[in-house]
Amino acid sequence: MSLIVQKYGGSSVADAESIKRVAKRIVEARRAGNDVVVAVSAMGDTTDELMDLANEVTPIQAPRELDMLLSSGERISMALLAMAIKSLGHDARSFTGSQAGMITDSVHGAARIVDVTPVRLREALDEGAVVIVAGFQGFSRESRDITTLGRGGSDTTAVALAAALDADVCEIYTDVDGVFTSDPRIVTKAHKLDRITSEEMLELAGSGAKVLHIRAVEYARRHGVTLHVRSSFNNSEGTIVYDPERLPEGGAVEESVIAGVAVDLGQVKITVVGVPDVPGAAAKIFKIVARTNANVDMIVQNVSAAATGRTDISFTVPKSDGEKALTALSDAQESLGFESLQYDDQIGKLSLVGAAMRSAAGISARLFEALYEAGINIEMISTSEIRISVVTRADSVNAAARAVHTAFDLDGDDDAVVYAGTGR
Amino acid sequence: MSLIVQKYGGSSVADAESIKRVAKRIVEARRAGNDVVVAVSAMGDTTDELMDLANEVTPIQAPRELDMLLSSGERISMALLAMAIKSLGHDARSFTGSQAGMITDSVHGAARIVDVTPVRLREALDEGAVVIVAGFQGFSRESRDITTLGRGGSDTTAVALAAALDADVCEIYTDVDGVFTSDPRIVTKAHKLDRITSEEMLELAGSGAKVLHIRAVEYARRHGVTLHVRSSFNNSEGTIVYDPERLPEGGAVEESVIAGVAVDLGQVKITVVGVPDVPGAAAKIFKIVARTNANVDMIVQNVSAAATGRTDISFTVPKSDGEKALTALSDAQESLGFESLQYDDQIGKLSLVGAAMRSAAGISARLFEALYEAGINIEMISTSEIRISVVTRADSVNAAARAVHTAFDLDGDDDAVVYAGTGR
Repeated sequence: MSLIVQKYGGSSVADAESIKRVAKRIVEARRAGNDVVVAVSAMGDTTDELMDLANEVTPIQAPRELDMLLSSGERISMALLAMAIKSLGHDARSFTGSQAGMITDSVHGAARIVDVTPVRLREALDEGAVVIVAGFQGFSRESRDITTLGRGGSDTTAVALAAALDADVCEIYTDVDGVFTSDPRIVTKAHKLDRITSEEMLELAGSGAKVLHIRAVEYARRHGVTLHVRSSFNNSEGTIVYDPERLPEGGAVEESVIAGVAVDLGQVKITVVGVPDVPGAAAKIFKIVARTNANVDMIVQNVSAAATGRTDISFTVPKSDGEKALTALSDAQESLGFESLQYDDQIGKLSLVGAAMRSAAGISARLFEALYEAGINIEMISTSEIRISVVTRADSVNAAARAVHTAFDLDGDDDAVVYAGTGR
Repeated sequence: MSLIVQKYGGSSVADAESIKRVAKRIVEARRAGNDVVVAVSAMGDTTDELMDLANEVTPIQAPRELDMLLSSGERISMALLAMAIKSLGHDARSFTGSQAGMITDSVHGAARIVDVTPVRLREALDEGAVVIVAGFQGFSRESRDITTLGRGGSDTTAVALAAALDADVCEIYTDVDGVFTSDPRIVTKAHKLDRITSEEMLELAGSGAKVLHIRAVEYARRHGVTLHVRSSFNNSEGTIVYDPERLPEGGAVEESVIAGVAVDLGQVKITVVGVPDVPGAAAKIFKIVARTNANVDMIVQNVSAAATGRTDISFTVPKSDGEKALTALSDAQESLGFESLQYDDQIGKLSLVGAAMRSAAGISARLFEALYEAGINIEMISTSEIRISVVTRADSVNAAARAVHTAFDLDGDDDAVVYAGTGR
């Protein structure tokens, strides 16, 4: 008998009908002879509606109370889902984060899981029940308060349960068929990947692919949890996200060179112009940026102009961090001694990801050539062991993605099907 | 420093504006130098909406899951209320039933409080915080599950907290000014009582007065909690519900003979016609009715007709219990040997309540005379130590209430103000 953890997002349980549909799917997995544990998000827009209500009451919400408020959303969906399963003749029990033993630190709104003690879940499974767990929420032993995990929280709940219960697989149900070689709304020839390594998935998620949250992928990788990303709207096989060192049955996997092309339009570029080219100048700049908690992604430093002894330093940060980084630098202009600041929110980032990149030669040359042939100018470049990212103008990044997708032989035979759903 | 427990019902926290208004009221009580503990219901129609959702998913809801679902309503209101208070500059913390130590048995949907261990509430009070507790819900130690208390639950939560914390007073905020001598929508001359004994309040609540739930009054009486029933829409003093053996400061209270006149249109009368007048006949009948869990209120047995050796037995039950009692009796016609059954849903019950009734003579004579003069026929009579109830035709019970109210000198000088609210 296998143990399967399934995760359903808000769009999969948006109303009573959807809940009944998901219940049937869970019962099918149970009837096939599996133990089933389900992590569920709040229904549809519940979390946004609760947030609106909180904003009506006060613009500044006490974090402890906000977590208490928002965590009520999953209690509604999980209780309804358990009822729906029971009405189909199978035992089911719902558990809050704290009942499920989802122990976190006390950082409200962005708590990290520190331990999972699924005693009650094991008992319920032993008694033959389907277990439903509230996603997104936990419990701090220290403060004895309810916490929430922040963005991507329900994915993380599912992965943490799979790790703690030593599940055979963690199925992440979503409104797309799996992980694609690129965003099908941009690259119509994108095709679904049957498999991808967790390392590649991590780079794709970090480069703008939205199908899985980076934090859940990290957790899965660290704990050796195999993920299966698939659609809740059909029965097709999705994409297996696996650790090549813990190969799924079937032995060695033929790895393709490139897993996918990701596009990210959520970054801005800040350029510090005329920085004195002396040792420690860059350190000073990024110390000031770090103090604002801005998440710096790419950094490029120009070659110094010999005549002036000055250089330019450009970096990218998420749009939401742009303004505070800019303000902090502007405030420190005198001590840093730079000439001016430039702010550019019309950039796009394209990332090419593939685990085999580390052994295969000529990948970057092929990438730059494809962009050159498509007439696209590269403004910044950064690389990791299995990723190359380039920054282009925002309005040419989609064309860039299509050109690169074709150049690396990723195009499928048919156009990908794009769903109307919102993606969780 | 006094400790005040306040209870706000769903209509007092129906939307963001109402929550802010209630928050101000709580802060005023805190600023006046009191420790404040608040029990709060779910916002407006939340509970009904959750119930509708459950009905859409399945007509038969697992009781454990239904409690999980319904208990989410108070988490929303209490978190918002705590936020609102904090935004006014006072510390506030919300607690679920289980966090508040509201320990119940495991009867889902109608759990009884078995213990209250308000350790965390005391800690929060000691730290100067206003404490907000989810009404209506508790936690079963035995099953480790969340329970709900059923009808009148939030009133009971407030009273149980007041008892456990040894509060000076438990203020029940509602949308009327207090406890009236009769329902002002029926008897326009009804006036607000300044005081009423808990015994009288118990009889009034049991006789159809809706301002307080009978269970909360019982709990208050058993634990010596003084209640103050008052409006959340103004600052007027309401009605004190007290135990005369634990007199509030000020010593002896001059008790009036009659506290009030209650009307109940929620009962039906079942008559078992032609019952063999032999020992044990009534016992057999009510054993069968008891098996249906129908809550029998009044019973009248006619004098047996000597010629036939048969008699008629009439009793009243709440409308919701009527059909099942009727069916059970009908199924047992052969063994009981009666001739036929009559079902009458056009009855009204009028109850006259007053603690001094036990010492004052002639009360019932005066009641019957008032009804006779108003031309109203009495169909059944029952009495307790401090209550007389009569059954009349449904369409004459309101006129009966007005006549009795006048006959016992209860009429106020002015017409009572009737609010549009829903009461709860």
